[in-house]
Amino acid sequence: MNNKIPVSVLAATGSVGQRFISLLADHPWFEVVEITASDRSVGLRYEEACHWLLPQPMPEFVRKMVLLPTEAASLKKSAIAFSALPADIAKTVELDAAKAGIYVCSNASAYRKDPLVPILVPEANPDHIRILDVQQKEYGWRGGIITNPNCTTTGFVVPLTAIDRKFSVERAIVFSMQAISGAGYPGVASMDILDNVIPYIGGEEEKLEFEPAKIMGKFDGARIHQHPFKVSAHTNRVAVVDAHTICLSFELKEKGSVDALIDALESFEFSDLLKGLPSLPEKAIVYHREANRPQPRFDRNLYHGMASHVGRLRPCSIFDYRMVTLSHNTIKGAAGGSIVNAELLARTKFGK
Amino acid sequence: MNNKIPVSVLAATGSVGQRFISLLADHPWFEVVEITASDRSVGLRYEEACHWLLPQPMPEFVRKMVLLPTEAASLKKSAIAFSALPADIAKTVELDAAKAGIYVCSNASAYRKDPLVPILVPEANPDHIRILDVQQKEYGWRGGIITNPNCTTTGFVVPLTAIDRKFSVERAIVFSMQAISGAGYPGVASMDILDNVIPYIGGEEEKLEFEPAKIMGKFDGARIHQHPFKVSAHTNRVAVVDAHTICLSFELKEKGSVDALIDALESFEFSDLLKGLPSLPEKAIVYHREANRPQPRFDRNLYHGMASHVGRLRPCSIFDYRMVTLSHNTIKGAAGGSIVNAELLARTKFGK
Amino acid sequence: MNNKIPVSVLAATGSVGQRFISLLADHPWFEVVEITASDRSVGLRYEEACHWLLPQPMPEFVRKMVLLPTEAASLKKSAIAFSALPADIAKTVELDAAKAGIYVCSNASAYRKDPLVPILVPEANPDHIRILDVQQKEYGWRGGIITNPNCTTTGFVVPLTAIDRKFSVERAIVFSMQAISGAGYPGVASMDILDNVIPYIGGEEEKLEFEPAKIMGKFDGARIHQHPFKVSAHTNRVAVVDAHTICLSFELKEKGSVDALIDALESFEFSDLLKGLPSLPEKAIVYHREANRPQPRFDRNLYHGMASHVGRLRPCSIFDYRMVTLSHNTIKGAAGGSIVNAELLARTKFGK
Amino acid sequence: MNNKIPVSVLAATGSVGQRFISLLADHPWFEVVEITASDRSVGLRYEEACHWLLPQPMPEFVRKMVLLPTEAASLKKSAIAFSALPADIAKTVELDAAKAGIYVCSNASAYRKDPLVPILVPEANPDHIRILDVQQKEYGWRGGIITNPNCTTTGFVVPLTAIDRKFSVERAIVFSMQAISGAGYPGVASMDILDNVIPYIGGEEEKLEFEPAKIMGKFDGARIHQHPFKVSAHTNRVAVVDAHTICLSFELKEKGSVDALIDALESFEFSDLLKGLPSLPEKAIVYHREANRPQPRFDRNLYHGMASHVGRLRPCSIFDYRMVTLSHNTIKGAAGGSIVNAELLARTKFGK
Repeated sequence: MNNKIPVSVLAATGSVGQRFISLLADHPWFEVVEITASDRSVGLRYEEACHWLLPQPMPEFVRKMVLLPTEAASLKKSAIAFSALPADIAKTVELDAAKAGIYVCSNASAYRKDPLVPILVPEANPDHIRILDVQQKEYGWRGGIITNPNCTTTGFVVPLTAIDRKFSVERAIVFSMQAISGAGYPGVASMDILDNVIPYIGGEEEKLEFEPAKIMGKFDGARIHQHPFKVSAHTNRVAVVDAHTICLSFELKEKGSVDALIDALESFEFSDLLKGLPSLPEKAIVYHREANRPQPRFDRNLYHGMASHVGRLRPCSIFDYRMVTLSHNTIKGAAGGSIVNAELLARTKFGK
Repeated sequence: MNNKIPVSVLAATGSVGQRFISLLADHPWFEVVEITASDRSVGLRYEEACHWLLPQPMPEFVRKMVLLPTEAASLKKSAIAFSALPADIAKTVELDAAKAGIYVCSNASAYRKDPLVPILVPEANPDHIRILDVQQKEYGWRGGIITNPNCTTTGFVVPLTAIDRKFSVERAIVFSMQAISGAGYPGVASMDILDNVIPYIGGEEEKLEFEPAKIMGKFDGARIHQHPFKVSAHTNRVAVVDAHTICLSFELKEKGSVDALIDALESFEFSDLLKGLPSLPEKAIVYHREANRPQPRFDRNLYHGMASHVGRLRPCSIFDYRMVTLSHNTIKGAAGGSIVNAELLARTKFGK
Repeated sequence: MNNKIPVSVLAATGSVGQRFISLLADHPWFEVVEITASDRSVGLRYEEACHWLLPQPMPEFVRKMVLLPTEAASLKKSAIAFSALPADIAKTVELDAAKAGIYVCSNASAYRKDPLVPILVPEANPDHIRILDVQQKEYGWRGGIITNPNCTTTGFVVPLTAIDRKFSVERAIVFSMQAISGAGYPGVASMDILDNVIPYIGGEEEKLEFEPAKIMGKFDGARIHQHPFKVSAHTNRVAVVDAHTICLSFELKEKGSVDALIDALESFEFSDLLKGLPSLPEKAIVYHREANRPQPRFDRNLYHGMASHVGRLRPCSIFDYRMVTLSHNTIKGAAGGSIVNAELLARTKFGK
Repeated sequence: MNNKIPVSVLAATGSVGQRFISLLADHPWFEVVEITASDRSVGLRYEEACHWLLPQPMPEFVRKMVLLPTEAASLKKSAIAFSALPADIAKTVELDAAKAGIYVCSNASAYRKDPLVPILVPEANPDHIRILDVQQKEYGWRGGIITNPNCTTTGFVVPLTAIDRKFSVERAIVFSMQAISGAGYPGVASMDILDNVIPYIGGEEEKLEFEPAKIMGKFDGARIHQHPFKVSAHTNRVAVVDAHTICLSFELKEKGSVDALIDALESFEFSDLLKGLPSLPEKAIVYHREANRPQPRFDRNLYHGMASHVGRLRPCSIFDYRMVTLSHNTIKGAAGGSIVNAELLARTKFGK
């Protein structure tokens, strides 16, 4: 008998679901007790239903687990549910679960625009977790919903926050080169991406223009106030397996030297609220001094895929500065990010 | 006996040199009479010295031609020399040739910053060719030098010119995803680009920030006056064989609707100076209405690789508009562009 | 008014269907008068229903053509139907069309094993077309069915035939590295093939072991007698857009030198039956003497994608010889191959 | 003060040298005390001279180490030298080191054909290590030389040995699809491999035809007797970063069922000589039952990149059986393989 918190993974067989399973396999605080899938897989064992895509082997614990229907009623033992659901299904299932007393840590976009649901990035806005109490009071939920941002937002919001705290960001134009794993499986057809670039990802640019301002906003105990800065985004798909690379030009209110900005990145520290969370990387932000870094294949797996990488911070001839950021889209940007959110939740609500 | 103008290709065995050879194979106005290479290939036949990289077969005419030393003295019969030389060698050889009475159409960067040498893009600034007379008068050259821009500048300067003529561009932030062929051969190591992005190309951003303002500048009969608009560039290498894709956010002096801008692109016409040049595409600018175009593999070869492709023109939440441009970097952006320059020269100076 | 033969394309919007449309656009003998698609596209214009995948633009003639249901009854004007149908649908529709008096040139596998249906590769077995008369007599069809082989069989059967005619092939072990376009669209997921090899293609090895023996078999006026030689196949998918590369080790009954075998390949000539067919390449077999050729990206488009390429013919330390073959899988290996079959048919049955 | 054996890495900055450095970083038995490089890097610190290519960070211990000249005289403290030298330099330096009392574990091909130098693959022929005594007696060396095979030989020789022990392999035709990392850095140009296959690797096929017979040969205390079986090889380069995939058709003397062969693979056990060596994987051979495995990206890193993977064992219509094998070419096939050899050496000669 252990003291682990019982958790579930919703949509456990998809590409983000697999990352959840893999990262939760030996988690010191959480134990996966329930997994769900879409109708055609319900009742099958995980190993029968899942086309496993990760370079690590499928964990033993999950092979024989039976897939349950994707509905709140399936979650009889879970205190926390990790959601890798598509947005439309998340709309219903996450709400039902929150009402039923479960805390949902969601990778879906369904509730990111809900004013009482935080988009939580622990390095950036750990205090937003306290809005869970407002959810319970105003919505009458016995549990709650926490979301993590779109995987591309994650890729630049941490460095931007570190800079914003000292220099106040006013405007940022961001250009992404996103990995194919961000589109799930089967996702992007090889005929569309081999020897090619797709300069369009449906719905993505809107997310990058909305989410950072909410994440970087202030929580006053009742509401989150959007940060007033503006983002304009260009999103592209490239032939990379994992990790999104993002170029930014940005304007600051307070001026500072290149060295001062790099220092703001390198000296960025985790909030005391986060100390000791098991899935936090040793460093939140890694600044690369080589002229041509960060790069997806070489940097994505450093610090277990949980760090934000930055390089090429230099003046911009139009805005103040330019830089390149990179992070692992299915670890830091999806399952891994949700798990840190849940660890912060476990500390806040479950006494860990 | 024909009436073709005798031409040479300097550095004929490299990747741009091969494009020159291929495009000049059946040219109606030009006949390749001399080809040069670096020391280790001098004296060899072209087919012995050249590691042919193009998907079309090596033209028959060039197989047995003997490679000459790369120096002006080798060019005994040429009226025009196409230069695919590296910048440092171009510095000397192109100058010597110009003094010796040869017109050099150069793909090298060596003279792009020379105030009396034009960076010629026929769709954008055909009148700049008249500065050749100033070269002869002020520098005492009997021939002259014309350059074409960096292949990435070419990728967006034509659409930007079309928009500028009606709406005056003030600032543009550009972000490139460039093909590996832009780095020559062997160029980019496969270990560096497979499943990867390289967010840095040495010296490239400076070129993109300087060249458009010169191309789009006004020639007053004596000097070229830089266009006052500003560019800030982010350049990246991606796993694409040919064609550079570029995202831009830009600010206009005169405001106009999306439809008005698309109309400016689609109704853009060649100057009368260019009518009938053999290598001009039917259309200078192709606007793609599909949400996810242009794309390198699908669009680069349309109009024989000589068109400028544009798509996704839409408002920018920070500047006025955003768009995506694309063009073939070794055809339109290098050898093909130089050949059109030479055709304009042939009309101007050789009565074609 | 023209004298072209009216033809249709069945499954015109898929990847092979698009190749048919593209190659038939300016065909001197054929005019596309009817096109079909699956239910969800019926009634739409081609340009509305088709996700065009080719690097050439969609031909003008087809843009506004309306898609008909995929059934024989739709073919009211066609004398010849080109079929890009999946095998299960082909089973019914091709049979109905043959009964109704249409000649079907099929890329599907449905009838390849039918003893009275030829697998026709004009370079190898043009006389097999005469079995159409046996079809009509024995099956009572007013039209007929001709198939072309699997695109990988096509890749090596022409060179093997050239060698077999002089040296009698007894056994061949073949290893393929196949392009993603062979799996159609969306086909192979990019997550499955980027930085990867898939050493399995369902049902493919069986085809490579059956088809060559039928193609290379003798037609005695009534039946095709399988060639007695044996094939063992290993099939693999690699990250190449177009063209299948195949390595073979093979054993001969009559021994010959490397030079004699290369000579058999290079001196291979088309049958007189084929002289003047519009889509035949100038050369059937191209032997590459460079040590590292043929290669997909550099050789697939030579001779309009219609040639068979061979290289590296050398002794095998176990069988007699080894070699590498390559051909374009969606041109020579699919639509282009079917069109040459139809041209031979047009000559035989329609007096062209 | 520790009891580790002092070791050196020759050619420590190249791609295999980097793998040695990475794998030796926390090795329980070995401590890197000397590193060498080519002339232009001598005297520099490792971090200054090395273009680090691995996805793990450069180990701290090596960053400040100074690079020594690549000659035996540099090795003043090493008992064992790991060699990642090119063959021509290895010829001299490895010999000098062996004479000087150092045991060289070499990844180079220079001495693989020397009758007294073993090609050691611990899973296959651990007893061959005893030929070191013969080297010392007959050549007068105070140290010795052990080689590991070409990385592609490694990819199939372990499974073939497992099958040979029970069923006696007589002939095998092998076909490789090799990763770009096998060619070092910069190695394969991206222009040569993107959207392409190179069906030729210089000198590789000869190695695959010689090495397995020596590895699988019998050592009688004085000489190694080549195994009489024959190999014919086809080698190809494909767009994969790491891991070589190999298809084989092979003939057996003793017949056995598919199940019996799979059982021979799965029940294959390490020799008692190897028990407890720190870098041995838990399993020597992993048999994959999925129809489409093993695959490079998904399987190469299992068991720390040190296992041999097999799949698709099935009858061959010409020889007895066919199968697919895969192993990591720069870990198991190069540095990792050499390190296990050195561990066996450490046990034999250094009392570990």
